[in-house]
Amino acid sequence: MSVDITVSEVGPRDGLQSIRTIMPTQSKKDWIRAQFDAGTREIEVGSFVPPKLLPQMADTAEVTRYAAEIDGLTVAVLVPNRRGLENALSAGAHKIAIPFSMSESHSLKNVRKTHAQMLEEIASCVALLNTVAVDQRPAFEVGLSTAFGCTIEGAVPETRVVSMAERVIELGVDEVGLSDTTGYGNPAQLKRLAEGIWAAVGRDRMTGVHLHNTRGQGLANALMAVELGFTTIDSSLGGLGGCPFAPGASGNIVTEDLVFLLEAMGLKTGIDLEKLFEVRKQVQAALPDEAMYGFVPAAGLPLGFAAHSP
Amino acid sequence: MSVDITVSEVGPRDGLQSIRTIMPTQSKKDWIRAQFDAGTREIEVGSFVPPKLLPQMADTAEVTRYAAEIDGLTVAVLVPNRRGLENALSAGAHKIAIPFSMSESHSLKNVRKTHAQMLEEIASCVALLNTVAVDQRPAFEVGLSTAFGCTIEGAVPETRVVSMAERVIELGVDEVGLSDTTGYGNPAQLKRLAEGIWAAVGRDRMTGVHLHNTRGQGLANALMAVELGFTTIDSSLGGLGGCPFAPGASGNIVTEDLVFLLEAMGLKTGIDLEKLFEVRKQVQAALPDEAMYGFVPAAGLPLGFAAHSP
Repeated sequence: MSVDITVSEVGPRDGLQSIRTIMPTQSKKDWIRAQFDAGTREIEVGSFVPPKLLPQMADTAEVTRYAAEIDGLTVAVLVPNRRGLENALSAGAHKIAIPFSMSESHSLKNVRKTHAQMLEEIASCVALLNTVAVDQRPAFEVGLSTAFGCTIEGAVPETRVVSMAERVIELGVDEVGLSDTTGYGNPAQLKRLAEGIWAAVGRDRMTGVHLHNTRGQGLANALMAVELGFTTIDSSLGGLGGCPFAPGASGNIVTEDLVFLLEAMGLKTGIDLEKLFEVRKQVQAALPDEAMYGFVPAAGLPLGFAAHSP
Repeated sequence: MSVDITVSEVGPRDGLQSIRTIMPTQSKKDWIRAQFDAGTREIEVGSFVPPKLLPQMADTAEVTRYAAEIDGLTVAVLVPNRRGLENALSAGAHKIAIPFSMSESHSLKNVRKTHAQMLEEIASCVALLNTVAVDQRPAFEVGLSTAFGCTIEGAVPETRVVSMAERVIELGVDEVGLSDTTGYGNPAQLKRLAEGIWAAVGRDRMTGVHLHNTRGQGLANALMAVELGFTTIDSSLGGLGGCPFAPGASGNIVTEDLVFLLEAMGLKTGIDLEKLFEVRKQVQAALPDEAMYGFVPAAGLPLGFAAHSP
């Protein structure tokens, strides 16, 4: 079926990497399969980081290989560098993203790389991808993280975000993605950033946003994203890993609430909300000690609410 | 100072009437004064309902009289009927609203009146207001409650909401207000309803919305309201009285989160967020057993965030 908005599930990556519990590999596979069955067609299944740094992601290669066998599912992964990219390619990921922090202080703190070093790393990734046969080559995206502001630097100049987007597209990446890592973003800022980047690199070079709900602004920003014409929005089932009341929390948008927003507006996501609630229960059962969030799961669907069927 | 959006504080009415604790009259006065000092210029201070039904609102006349003495504050109140209107007029309220449920089942359950009886009651209210000297006459508004759907009836036909808005304006009320009593609303629906009503009665006859956050859609709907041109949005400090996880909860938009959305977008509310956080603490101290909500108070303002000064 055709969808209006692709709700890209990042729970198995962004959610799981932010919690203490390590989810067993089989539970990850069951989650991915169940969410595919509920209608989700893009899932970020893991991050190719050193297991010592993030033991939660140690099985990413196996999970990626499993997910890539599900016909119709776009398997997205994160990589921090060229080494990660090599592993992601071996595992058969369809969509590979490398985060590039628009705040240099944040980049240094997070991956110990300056902007110049990150641009070199990205160029090196593109060089590697250019050795892959065209019909095997996954999409390669640079996530413009901390694009809306940084907890170390504060405001991040919008002109810098636009020029960095331009530079990485010139380096040969397929797309950039706007990422509100810190939950600082507001709809007016999203509009300015999107229009600035689109003017610089073209609309087809940026189709997705990664928004956080740390300050409760996630769905307002998502609405603006839809109005602007973004076609992919990231979210995490049950807002997993994102308690907005804990320091350092990612505070992802809750998938259930986002799907409700879109479906209620008549925008097709392809996702069945009732089935999604069942996946939520399954994931909660696999993570009994972790909190899951969301307003729609708590309040229930409106009486007589019917999502638009395919 | 001029503001772009009036954030109308409904906590002392919608918040307090939904909680078990009865706030002492002096605490209500202190709250109203403190929030005025933080920049709020419209506060719904109470509801003129029989004290037997809502003991939390028994002191509404006294609170209204106190608030009306604060120079520059618009004092709003709710009335269920003509009897309440008489009391509101005596107390000196500036803005008086009567809720009119667009779901007849809900109207019957809530105030034991059919739509025909409600229209009679509203006509009787207008007749009473017409006896008041023009320079003393408060604004009289009909709140179109359950306009986005009803927990008893389910979907409420949008044509019905538009025609009821038209009828009450014909009866002589000054304004209608769109009210998402049940938290069923979505931005597309808000747009259709607003445009339908404006086409029927004119834009100056509907300038405010009362949105709920029961399903986490409050700020997305508020963003749409701003885009459509609404200039008054209701909200409740700390989302008081509105735990979305409790049955029957009202789930008001959290004032702090709404003010942040608007100020971050560059829209002037006249409200100082830091001072608002202090009011929140004051109200929490007066209601130690009641939960207060909100993402921005929990996460804090972004580093370097400065609201637009007057």
